[in-house]
Amino acid sequence: MENIKRVEPRTLSGFMELLPQDQIKFNEMLDIIKKTYELYGFLPEETPIIESSEVLLAKAGGETEKQIYSFRKGDKDLSLRFDLTVPLAKYVAQYYNDLTFPYRRYQIGKVFRGERAQKGRYREFYQCDIDIIGDGKLSIINDAEIPSVIYTTFKNLGFDNFIIKINNRKILNGLFDELNISQKKTEILIIIDKLEKIGMEAVKEELRKLELSNGIINKIEEFFKIDGTTDEKLEKLEQLGFNSYIFKEGLQELKEVVKYVRLFNVEEKNFTVDLTIARGLDYYTGTVYETNLVGYESIGSICSGGRYENLASYYTKKNLPGVGISIGLTRLFYNLKELGLLNTTKKSISKVGIIPMGSEFEEAVNISNLLRENNIPNEIYKEDSKIKNKFSYANNLDIPYVIIIGQEEKEKGMFTIKNMITGDQNMLSASDILKILK
Amino acid sequence: MENIKRVEPRTLSGFMELLPQDQIKFNEMLDIIKKTYELYGFLPEETPIIESSEVLLAKAGGETEKQIYSFRKGDKDLSLRFDLTVPLAKYVAQYYNDLTFPYRRYQIGKVFRGERAQKGRYREFYQCDIDIIGDGKLSIINDAEIPSVIYTTFKNLGFDNFIIKINNRKILNGLFDELNISQKKTEILIIIDKLEKIGMEAVKEELRKLELSNGIINKIEEFFKIDGTTDEKLEKLEQLGFNSYIFKEGLQELKEVVKYVRLFNVEEKNFTVDLTIARGLDYYTGTVYETNLVGYESIGSICSGGRYENLASYYTKKNLPGVGISIGLTRLFYNLKELGLLNTTKKSISKVGIIPMGSEFEEAVNISNLLRENNIPNEIYKEDSKIKNKFSYANNLDIPYVIIIGQEEKEKGMFTIKNMITGDQNMLSASDILKILK
Repeated sequence: MENIKRVEPRTLSGFMELLPQDQIKFNEMLDIIKKTYELYGFLPEETPIIESSEVLLAKAGGETEKQIYSFRKGDKDLSLRFDLTVPLAKYVAQYYNDLTFPYRRYQIGKVFRGERAQKGRYREFYQCDIDIIGDGKLSIINDAEIPSVIYTTFKNLGFDNFIIKINNRKILNGLFDELNISQKKTEILIIIDKLEKIGMEAVKEELRKLELSNGIINKIEEFFKIDGTTDEKLEKLEQLGFNSYIFKEGLQELKEVVKYVRLFNVEEKNFTVDLTIARGLDYYTGTVYETNLVGYESIGSICSGGRYENLASYYTKKNLPGVGISIGLTRLFYNLKELGLLNTTKKSISKVGIIPMGSEFEEAVNISNLLRENNIPNEIYKEDSKIKNKFSYANNLDIPYVIIIGQEEKEKGMFTIKNMITGDQNMLSASDILKILK
Repeated sequence: MENIKRVEPRTLSGFMELLPQDQIKFNEMLDIIKKTYELYGFLPEETPIIESSEVLLAKAGGETEKQIYSFRKGDKDLSLRFDLTVPLAKYVAQYYNDLTFPYRRYQIGKVFRGERAQKGRYREFYQCDIDIIGDGKLSIINDAEIPSVIYTTFKNLGFDNFIIKINNRKILNGLFDELNISQKKTEILIIIDKLEKIGMEAVKEELRKLELSNGIINKIEEFFKIDGTTDEKLEKLEQLGFNSYIFKEGLQELKEVVKYVRLFNVEEKNFTVDLTIARGLDYYTGTVYETNLVGYESIGSICSGGRYENLASYYTKKNLPGVGISIGLTRLFYNLKELGLLNTTKKSISKVGIIPMGSEFEEAVNISNLLRENNIPNEIYKEDSKIKNKFSYANNLDIPYVIIIGQEEKEKGMFTIKNMITGDQNMLSASDILKILK
């Protein structure tokens, strides 16, 4: 054995690997997200991590394509999925005839992007997505259900102070229409996206570089300065008196969304209309969402998405509009931990640790069986160790209860149970122990 | 849009992708396995899918190495994990100082092997592993707990007729020791492994080719013909009167394992001692396990594993003995489906589908909120469609209950609930509906 050439065990940078205490918390969060998505009846979907490059990159290009993990195996060009949306598009086009529409699915899984390594950026990370895909059309009420899912998910995750920002791309497109500057739309949106970071004066400075007239720039400023309550914002948008058809349609949709978001019991403090939200340059065509943790805006949006006109145009002629969101859990988890907002108190899965003082293993197995049959996670310390080590094990793992079995317990057919938090200790029968633990 | 170059949406061969009905079942099985592992207090572990090739392939070689998905990204040689054992070894060596021993963990996740494509063989598949790792030593009672985990897992998955085959490698090594044929051990084990398939006469024929004497071959036959109940087999092994130290140690361990397996309430019909089980040529050093579905032995072992002397010798000088098993869920799922043993009756996550006959969306959202607040998964049909289509949706997804809201219900503030299995239909208040559904 001593001739083995040893390799330093290590994990690649940009890849999350957790100790049990953090992993328990991470899995709890995953589970809450999954359960919440299922409360809304979303179906589970799981697509392969490896796909044919031709299929996966049908649409890709630019920055994304550079980040993709691609390789050959045998005579095949393969790639690792870089999001869950492209696989969804493939899936819906491929199984169109087997699916019931609107197709409501969630997918939770890892995706891969070879980004430049930097703090809080991961190359392998979880996305937790929901999407609702219509066949030809999809009611706007779906766009209001999505913020309800976001709201319930983050409430269930234990957050109270978050804000879902809602906008509609048609309102932005309508503005550009109205001002006859649609051909500069892309450049303007890139500038507006920086508004929160650089402020209105710097934004105007940059807009001037696009050779927009002062009149136009003032109109843009007026638009993006719209403020007040949600209803006041909607009212002010109305009062702009724009004639653009697309603007009117967007405003109508936004009003419907706001109306139903309220009906879905999303609290007023947890959502707002934010006209600066655009979510990228193509893809989204209607409602768009971002979500911020209030007071921690610097970590960016923790849940984003929107409405798209056509999910799968690279795979099928069928028109498949949809609306969806994604939570990037790996990054969120990292940020919460960095901010000290993660409550990772649980170090063990076992509720009970069973410790035979000597060789009372039969009794230990018997009580372990009984607890397990009653759905109480437990484990037996089975090693031949000093008493001190046996208790260290339970202490290190913060197991809430310990059952101790020594000579006296064995003779009496009883078990000593110790509450490791209060220190309370009692010798009881198996059935009384069960009562305490249930 | 019509100028788009379309790509045929498809999934690579050797990669499992399921329709919702099967995916629901698959996830249920995953969940049962996870919950059962947690009942025994195993901690969750999750390692990256991508690792440095140097780390992942520290030990690999031969057939496995050829199957590995390896590639370069930037200046790094990367590989996809091909099992969960090598990542476990890395993890335990890397975080040795942060872990509490015995370290009991489960990991459930996908692994990747570019095997030759054939029916039921997957290139991306789930493994569901548990392992118990000791620091320097590990009690034999752990070897008895493992069959208990296998037993409970398959019982919880709904199986009754399976058999866990238990052996101990030391008994086999002791046999070769006793007969002075240890130098031919590997070749002999390869032949014995075929026993069930080709029968004793063909095995003897092959053994003769190894230039073993008839006396030796008869002794081997005598050994592998040992039969009877578990206790009878143990008794016959004892009666062989072997002097080999390693044989005696193996037999003693096997007896201990059998004793505790019974204490752990594993039914007699669900386990046996099977002296032909060897589980590969190196790695395992003590207890070994295989599990068969009775009547479906041709699909091979559905859960295998064993005891190893040293988990992480390629990463650390520390001596880390362990015992563990793995369930290959993707392959098992495929086989169960092929055999018609899969009970996939559930097509929806929603327990209730809410159908507004016209535009009773406010009422629909209200009852949906109420049900969701009471943890009842439900969804609203929101599209502007013919009544027929609305009911088709609920029918196609086999949603157990439908709540219908029309003009009459709206006026009365009531809801019509229909049990889609019995056809029973009643107009009730929201609170009465809640009572039925809870």
